[in-house]
Amino acid sequence: MSKLLIVGTVAFDAIETPFGKTDKILGGAATYIGLSAANFKAKSAIVSVVGDDFPQEHINLLQRNNINLEGLEVVNGGDTFFWSGRYHNDMNTRDTLDTQLNVLADFQPVVPDDFKNADIVMLGNLHPAVQLSVINQVNKPKLIVLDTMNFWMDTTLDLLKEVIEKVDVITINDEEARQLSGEYSLVKAARIISEMGPKYVVIKKGEHGALLFHGNEMFFAPALPLEEVFDPTGAGDTFAGGFTGYLAETKDTSFENMKNAIIYGSNLASFCVEKFGTEKMQELDIKAVNDRLKQFKSLTQFEINLT
Amino acid sequence: MSKLLIVGTVAFDAIETPFGKTDKILGGAATYIGLSAANFKAKSAIVSVVGDDFPQEHINLLQRNNINLEGLEVVNGGDTFFWSGRYHNDMNTRDTLDTQLNVLADFQPVVPDDFKNADIVMLGNLHPAVQLSVINQVNKPKLIVLDTMNFWMDTTLDLLKEVIEKVDVITINDEEARQLSGEYSLVKAARIISEMGPKYVVIKKGEHGALLFHGNEMFFAPALPLEEVFDPTGAGDTFAGGFTGYLAETKDTSFENMKNAIIYGSNLASFCVEKFGTEKMQELDIKAVNDRLKQFKSLTQFEINLT
Repeated sequence: MSKLLIVGTVAFDAIETPFGKTDKILGGAATYIGLSAANFKAKSAIVSVVGDDFPQEHINLLQRNNINLEGLEVVNGGDTFFWSGRYHNDMNTRDTLDTQLNVLADFQPVVPDDFKNADIVMLGNLHPAVQLSVINQVNKPKLIVLDTMNFWMDTTLDLLKEVIEKVDVITINDEEARQLSGEYSLVKAARIISEMGPKYVVIKKGEHGALLFHGNEMFFAPALPLEEVFDPTGAGDTFAGGFTGYLAETKDTSFENMKNAIIYGSNLASFCVEKFGTEKMQELDIKAVNDRLKQFKSLTQFEINLT
Repeated sequence: MSKLLIVGTVAFDAIETPFGKTDKILGGAATYIGLSAANFKAKSAIVSVVGDDFPQEHINLLQRNNINLEGLEVVNGGDTFFWSGRYHNDMNTRDTLDTQLNVLADFQPVVPDDFKNADIVMLGNLHPAVQLSVINQVNKPKLIVLDTMNFWMDTTLDLLKEVIEKVDVITINDEEARQLSGEYSLVKAARIISEMGPKYVVIKKGEHGALLFHGNEMFFAPALPLEEVFDPTGAGDTFAGGFTGYLAETKDTSFENMKNAIIYGSNLASFCVEKFGTEKMQELDIKAVNDRLKQFKSLTQFEINLT
């Protein structure tokens, strides 16, 4: 089995949407990525940090999902990273109410020996210095996938560019792609970002789907139109987990197979938003995912025979 | 050959985009619909009105595109409908600078005898009273397609609902679908709108593509990501022209074939925005359209074999 190494936050989230409000629940980029990737046949590990306030039941949940946690540092007397946000009525925009870095502030990632030869490395959204440290600890992975956000472009762009130079795939949202490239057209933005390093550029457009660019080739996966979006938290990370999990299972990083990985990423993300936090991802099995794949097919596939 | 009856404005537009500015150029919903549908094998006719300020060269252009103009009334001493707008930098939003109804104010549509048995009727965006008059003049068409906009929802909703009740397909944009249904979720909005009459609901999302709903079935066509959008004017009408033109040529109004029609609509619209006004549509031929179809296929089609 391929090895998938995931670095990212493991956190507490407090979320408010028009549908309700949670106390501190399990969250974090690595958590969503890991739970999503767990739907595929691969050996995965999370490199992250939590405080000793992080409950054993969350650890158990991740382990039940076959996620290796040797690289999850537990800081005695430390508090776990905490994020709190409130979504607007349209569910597309949100305000951050509180961010407490806590143990994340001094995090020095340590990649477990058994994952230094990971086939795929998924760098979840984190300080670029942490991402760079992980890149420097692994030994020629087949594929490095980077997720990042505008905050790092605003505060530590040079270091971020150093990371971007070293990765194969970058996933960012449309606004971030425009900010990073200085181009409004996503086609132009993707080309400029690709020249910074990554051969593959994935632009996430939330409810409007995701675009994959590679040279002059493009692929698009829609988001599945849903009756109700309950909580969008973690959808982008779940997408990344489905994308990398599928690539790890199939051991094929061709553009053609990346199309499928993008579809699986969108597929998994469509589940994530149906309940609060990681709730839906905890109960998901591959059968439900494959059933939903049929919906993606009927949503997008057509037969035109030119006359 | 099937007959396609088009009702809508034939107009002068003055357009400002970040790329430039035009004087009074040829515009209007029926114009774009007609030029787009002209790429398909069908007999089409426009029912509309212009003033005697409308130049012969525009008439010639429409006739060269095999559009029957018996139903195009020319009002002596009247001025043609005029619209002027300015697009914002993102090209997704625009301000209307001027609207002069002119001869459109008293327009009484007359469907030519030869098109009273039209197979497909495309009701372009116009006062619902005009659309209703056209519906009452035709004899059991196979399909009636309605385009409308928020302005009519704001000013003459009851009459608009009377039209909606009588059509088979409605095409509106996402914001209008939300306004008409009172639902934010497009899946729910489409269901509510469908209960008002049309068995098929097409929700246009501009650069984010278009959704087709029919009962519990959904289909999605992306907009082709472009290097540059030069002028979005007429893209929705061009979409409608491609949609109805394709259905007229293929004489098949099944859901499966409507998927293809949606793809052709998006295909044609992707050309429309590449130049100012109708410029690109004037020079287009079906070969270019079919070449671009390959791009739509590689953008959306994937092969996943479940293991």
